[in-house]
Amino acid sequence: MSTENAIAELSTLLGDRLKTSKAERAAHGRSETHFPPMLPDAVAWPKDTAEVSAIMKICANHGCPVIPFGAGTSLEGHTLAPQGGITLDMSRMNRLLAVNAEDMDCVVQPGLTREELNRELRATGLFFPIDPGANASLGGMAATRASGTTAVRYGTMRDNVLALEVVLADGRVIRTGSRARKSSSGYDLTALFTGSEGTLGVITELALRLHGQPEAISAAVCAFDEIGAAVDTVIATIQMGIPMARIEFLDEASVRAVNLYSEAGLPEKPHLLLEFHGSPAGVAEQAERFGEIVAEMGGRDFRWASRPEERSRLWEMRHKAFYACLALRKGARALVTDVCVPISRLAQAVRETRADIDASPLMGPILGHVGDGNFHAILLVEPDDAAEMAEAKALAERMAERALRLGGTITGEHGIGMGKRPAMAREHGAAWDLMREIKAALDPGATLNPGKVV
Amino acid sequence: MSTENAIAELSTLLGDRLKTSKAERAAHGRSETHFPPMLPDAVAWPKDTAEVSAIMKICANHGCPVIPFGAGTSLEGHTLAPQGGITLDMSRMNRLLAVNAEDMDCVVQPGLTREELNRELRATGLFFPIDPGANASLGGMAATRASGTTAVRYGTMRDNVLALEVVLADGRVIRTGSRARKSSSGYDLTALFTGSEGTLGVITELALRLHGQPEAISAAVCAFDEIGAAVDTVIATIQMGIPMARIEFLDEASVRAVNLYSEAGLPEKPHLLLEFHGSPAGVAEQAERFGEIVAEMGGRDFRWASRPEERSRLWEMRHKAFYACLALRKGARALVTDVCVPISRLAQAVRETRADIDASPLMGPILGHVGDGNFHAILLVEPDDAAEMAEAKALAERMAERALRLGGTITGEHGIGMGKRPAMAREHGAAWDLMREIKAALDPGATLNPGKVV
Repeated sequence: MSTENAIAELSTLLGDRLKTSKAERAAHGRSETHFPPMLPDAVAWPKDTAEVSAIMKICANHGCPVIPFGAGTSLEGHTLAPQGGITLDMSRMNRLLAVNAEDMDCVVQPGLTREELNRELRATGLFFPIDPGANASLGGMAATRASGTTAVRYGTMRDNVLALEVVLADGRVIRTGSRARKSSSGYDLTALFTGSEGTLGVITELALRLHGQPEAISAAVCAFDEIGAAVDTVIATIQMGIPMARIEFLDEASVRAVNLYSEAGLPEKPHLLLEFHGSPAGVAEQAERFGEIVAEMGGRDFRWASRPEERSRLWEMRHKAFYACLALRKGARALVTDVCVPISRLAQAVRETRADIDASPLMGPILGHVGDGNFHAILLVEPDDAAEMAEAKALAERMAERALRLGGTITGEHGIGMGKRPAMAREHGAAWDLMREIKAALDPGATLNPGKVV
Repeated sequence: MSTENAIAELSTLLGDRLKTSKAERAAHGRSETHFPPMLPDAVAWPKDTAEVSAIMKICANHGCPVIPFGAGTSLEGHTLAPQGGITLDMSRMNRLLAVNAEDMDCVVQPGLTREELNRELRATGLFFPIDPGANASLGGMAATRASGTTAVRYGTMRDNVLALEVVLADGRVIRTGSRARKSSSGYDLTALFTGSEGTLGVITELALRLHGQPEAISAAVCAFDEIGAAVDTVIATIQMGIPMARIEFLDEASVRAVNLYSEAGLPEKPHLLLEFHGSPAGVAEQAERFGEIVAEMGGRDFRWASRPEERSRLWEMRHKAFYACLALRKGARALVTDVCVPISRLAQAVRETRADIDASPLMGPILGHVGDGNFHAILLVEPDDAAEMAEAKALAERMAERALRLGGTITGEHGIGMGKRPAMAREHGAAWDLMREIKAALDPGATLNPGKVV
């Protein structure tokens, strides 16, 4: 068999950095969410770009699938191996190669995680702001065009990846972009690979924008009687141009979950969680202007968290919200939705979604990065219960349709993977065909992360 | 001949919106800079997307080149017709289709210019910030990934194009992106077409981000004894995180030019031109912090321009700097360079470039958007003088090489067109091959803007 032959050659190349044990295959062929396991035939741990290139050549020769793997925190089954093949675990390529403090950028290998990077940066006065919650690898975050709580201020991976080194399906190594802040030099290959989910090439190096650690940070929580008032507060804030660093929404069910899981002690009402970054005067001004909006919109229980430990507790609670929601139902798995709509449609989208879930037998807390118009319902399911899974998928499909009807997208930040593929034609029409044509041009043997995106 | 047959069919389709007169061909086959004219065989004025699609099908059938044309303000020969064919003048597709004030975006046709758009937006409290100087068409700005004086604050076209409608080489119409603020939904086709210079498709509609008109604006000019001090001031400003809206550099020769052309009355020294946007308190704070940096760096002759008419005069002077430089030498044309380097290398890049030009017989004022690390030398040449042209091209080549050696790019904002093609292999290596493979997949007949980029 062709995969067997590939494994034999890879074994010679990699020695004990190629493993075929059931345990490793299972650890790499599972998902954080509702997808059933789909195991690769082997797992490889390359140590440098040259080795990735050699692996790609061998796999291309044998028509053997290659699935890049970062930290495995994807929610859409990106790292599953529906056709078997080789999982490329990038965790040993995890070095911080350079920090260019004057230029506010750094160069990293793809296996480095965002938390590791920020630990290394602490003394420099700089930080890497993109925060999807999970301690994802930076290569994986680029591959899925990840974002999270801070995108409203600092943008997404699209905005913070300056340059890439990529190994193509045939083993060629290319460099895209540069450390210059802008360029009009030909096709934007950096953007093409950012979000391509390992289907066009394997990222082996990244240059990332860094940002100055803010002089002053202030965080707050604020309750509202009704979803609409919370969302309207967000809309007004964005329109006033207040440069929020974070503006997160939790609905009542999410608040219940974090109260149980993290002892958050919040009133069981829709909430906004906020953070302001800037100079001390700037933060004070932002907070004051935001306070005026909240007062106008009938917000209550406004509480400040200015001390670092209070802030840490607040965002840790937010980051654990996914697990808090999971804990609402013992043994459940999650089907996590991820729509993003123009901000003017956000209140409608959230309200209709809430009503739709409430009319179903499933639990589904709603929370999200509402400053971007992005929110998630965490649908709690028993994956072996076919009726429940069908119900959850139908809810998710209606959410996706609603987002498209309102001028939005089926995924704000989680990517397509296997989960969103069925909705691609509806979102993109003929543009999805074009994606397939690009895929065919760059990966004619279709060995790169098959079954994803296209 | 195939182009003749295409013209016959197009004539039936378009009637008097297809012209083959020498005057129209000449008006569309010239360049703002040093390139010799290269005329198309005909000029077409499509009125809608369906017509663009029909034109593309006819031209694909006959293997006839199609050259998209916005306002013709390109500096790199993007709209020249080295193989003849049909120039697609988009100026009749110039409507503002929608302003979504709540979402801070708008939808436009590609022929609308940025100044027309901002006139239409005036009453909304919003504006479109990207300002390349020339009153370019928005389609052309997207096609070249343009930026200009405000990119340091508001980003480039890459950051401000939300979605596109594009007609492909075979006439298919696709839509990329959506009005949602972010998306992880498949390959970033919006970014792929933004900057593709009409070589992958023709942009027929754009959704653009808008920004709130700042409450307060303040501008200033400031002189320095030496280039290095001016550039170090910029670096310190960026590193302090002061959110400048504009920070422009003029060297002595540029100041001499604007003094002669616009009676600017500036001391003949390197200058920075600045603008601050924000709340009144925010602008005051930014200005104060910037003032501290300037004092430390030995800046002088700091002058404020807070009244709107003073500011307009200042930026009009800056926008006319290209023509001011041209006027330094009667009858000269310009070869305009456009490198962009990491900010830490900016002082070195500018100093070495200045010395290189000073050692040549040519005049070449230097100016640029230094907050991005982007600057231009405007090399004044007599295009019919072969020795001068060779000298100018050698200077430009050394600038490009210097930029690459310093980790930068050969073009920050003007694009590749015909002028920068020879340097593409050096900047991109194997990634340029990949661009060609993408081009071949999307435009197998090679009819779209041939001779550019790839």
